[in-house]
Amino acid sequence: MTSILIKNVLHETTTTDVLIEGNLITRIAPGISAPRGAEVLDGTDKAIIPGFINTHTHASMTLFRGYGDDLPLMTWLEDYIWPVEAQMTPHDVYVGAKLACLEMLRSGTTCFLDMYMHPLETAKAVEEMGLRAHLSYTLFDQGNPERAALDRKRSYEYMERFGEFSDRITFTLGPHAIYTVSGEQLQFCHQFAVEHGVKIHLHLSETKGEVEECIRLHGLSPVRYLEKLGILSEHLVLAHVVWVDDEEMDLLAKHNVSVVHNPASNMKLASGYTFKYEEMKRRGIRIGIGTDGCSSSNNLDMVVAMKLASFLGKAWRFDSTACKADDIFASATAVGADILDLNAGRIEEGRLADVCLVDLNTPELVPLNDLTSNLVYATSGSSCIDTVIVDGRILMRDKHVPGQEAIIAEAREVAQRLFSKHR
Amino acid sequence: MTSILIKNVLHETTTTDVLIEGNLITRIAPGISAPRGAEVLDGTDKAIIPGFINTHTHASMTLFRGYGDDLPLMTWLEDYIWPVEAQMTPHDVYVGAKLACLEMLRSGTTCFLDMYMHPLETAKAVEEMGLRAHLSYTLFDQGNPERAALDRKRSYEYMERFGEFSDRITFTLGPHAIYTVSGEQLQFCHQFAVEHGVKIHLHLSETKGEVEECIRLHGLSPVRYLEKLGILSEHLVLAHVVWVDDEEMDLLAKHNVSVVHNPASNMKLASGYTFKYEEMKRRGIRIGIGTDGCSSSNNLDMVVAMKLASFLGKAWRFDSTACKADDIFASATAVGADILDLNAGRIEEGRLADVCLVDLNTPELVPLNDLTSNLVYATSGSSCIDTVIVDGRILMRDKHVPGQEAIIAEAREVAQRLFSKHR
Repeated sequence: MTSILIKNVLHETTTTDVLIEGNLITRIAPGISAPRGAEVLDGTDKAIIPGFINTHTHASMTLFRGYGDDLPLMTWLEDYIWPVEAQMTPHDVYVGAKLACLEMLRSGTTCFLDMYMHPLETAKAVEEMGLRAHLSYTLFDQGNPERAALDRKRSYEYMERFGEFSDRITFTLGPHAIYTVSGEQLQFCHQFAVEHGVKIHLHLSETKGEVEECIRLHGLSPVRYLEKLGILSEHLVLAHVVWVDDEEMDLLAKHNVSVVHNPASNMKLASGYTFKYEEMKRRGIRIGIGTDGCSSSNNLDMVVAMKLASFLGKAWRFDSTACKADDIFASATAVGADILDLNAGRIEEGRLADVCLVDLNTPELVPLNDLTSNLVYATSGSSCIDTVIVDGRILMRDKHVPGQEAIIAEAREVAQRLFSKHR
Repeated sequence: MTSILIKNVLHETTTTDVLIEGNLITRIAPGISAPRGAEVLDGTDKAIIPGFINTHTHASMTLFRGYGDDLPLMTWLEDYIWPVEAQMTPHDVYVGAKLACLEMLRSGTTCFLDMYMHPLETAKAVEEMGLRAHLSYTLFDQGNPERAALDRKRSYEYMERFGEFSDRITFTLGPHAIYTVSGEQLQFCHQFAVEHGVKIHLHLSETKGEVEECIRLHGLSPVRYLEKLGILSEHLVLAHVVWVDDEEMDLLAKHNVSVVHNPASNMKLASGYTFKYEEMKRRGIRIGIGTDGCSSSNNLDMVVAMKLASFLGKAWRFDSTACKADDIFASATAVGADILDLNAGRIEEGRLADVCLVDLNTPELVPLNDLTSNLVYATSGSSCIDTVIVDGRILMRDKHVPGQEAIIAEAREVAQRLFSKHR
């Protein structure tokens, strides 16, 4: 069993040692002696924190970064995103996912919940890069019964094929949205999820238009519509959930549904800025933080996402005490782990060794009046994260991921091919 | 005359060479031969951009980072900020300003407009660190006539003492706010500014409460009150200006007043999120970007401030086309320079050589579909800025500022002394 001993590292407000054996944190105490063969890391001027858990993204869309910003939504989708996606090969998805993994490691993310086409390619990239991921097979039939049948069939096939990968990679179902997937298909997903114990990853109540359309078609707002379908459960992870009322939040709490706040995407796409973080938290709803994909939020930095979540939550409420740094940090780590049923997100003995070391000599982390505040408000992940360990393996040290130059070079080539003809 | 030749650097969408002679950019063209004695920098995989101009901050308050977050405004001021400020020595202000300069260099800021006590200490720090700064003598009498008289006297004395510094450092007047400085004192500042050709740096219309109080006391909203005092002019640089109506914006435009948007501070302190960027821009008002001080916004990273300015401006308008990356980038560079009458903020022959090199191998800048978009939306300054040149001198290379370890160590010591007794 391999082991890593981190000496003299700041944990919350105390300097201590942290021992990792196999893929677990096994001991946290000062003065631990290194087991035979252990790799010893010097934690001086570093803090240990749980790796971030990005609970909503589209990793391969990292290739789309900076392509088609500042446009109206439909122009952006129809003239920019969809024509390029139509030309993407499975290999392009793989290359995009590797770039995403690189950026996530650089900014301290150790696990993510993804939704994109060709999820086996993403799984391959994640497997190679060493992160942990929950990857959704996307169901997207737009009322076409043949495609719907194919999606059901593939849900089984993909779940089986995910068995080829290590247990760092988990299969989930990703029905895209209530306006692209039928009620029957959503009920299929629910049955599948209950039977096989997998999560369902669904966009919901992202824009006001989506809510209006749902009421027009089904006579009910989105959460009520899901309740009527009988699919509200602890299997469900809902991304966005900006436009909900009190009764809908009560329903989400009652059925133990998880919610993911994506502040960057909600702001940049102007889809709604009043995500009800405090109102959901008060009801005991698990709230994760997501970056969304780089086509809509332009980066995968969970530290930036934390800052936006807190700042935005204070701003629209006119309440500087809302969305406190400690709560938002928990959402990005421990709560994210809980949402994915992961024994991680905390620096505690017995937890998975998915951790980061923060470089406390980063200028914007000086002085260290409060570590959590400094992380949430003062820095970015890509600036301050020095070392990343996932599943007990060191994936990044000194801000460098082995092989990053080749990943960057290949991503540039693919982007050049995909985008040069569409400008 | 010293010279620097930057070879094969990306400038906007073209790879070229950039020659700096003395403190100016003198030539931009491919294939420039190095003048004798020139320092040659390799620009491969780097982009040259103008240094950022932070048009509102309180540099020395960087020491307060992370001290007293998430609190109601008056608790924060009365129980946290003021008791510590009462104990700060001039040397503490100097140490705080050096830390601020370090953070600014690390994140690509080459010039800032500051307001804080002991501005000669800040000037000393800036002189040593090599940046450019406009530093305000703060007038703050709160209705005390003796203090008001002293502030007038000191305005002359400080202006004279600023003559001891290089021309990178410029004196400005900083009447704190309309609720801490009388109308007569503001008129004194205006006369002084006209006579001596200096700027006036004033907080205005930051909170709704300030506007209500101004109407109660003077029967007028803040901009109308300044108009009545006869002090609206091109000398005036107003920080915040969140709570203004159409007629007030017309007045600001008519009198050529400059405005500074501080999105991080406005969000974190929950003082108002509807800064009218597009409405002011349409009127031709010069809009700069500021970080405000680290006690209210927790960092000095102008790239983060750009992202917040754009995202927030889109969000509350429900308009993804508002506050475009190009406009916000201009606000943080060229417009900021114009506000301070500085021949900078642009990569052009004849401009001051206040420039940065961006590391294009930073993962979150890959792929490079659009450089400006990547800067505004995808990264942070402290993550991607590699080299900083101010006034033709290289102040940072390879993300390292000479002496930064000592600056950090001294800042930690001062913070330890100031804050440990106040917890």
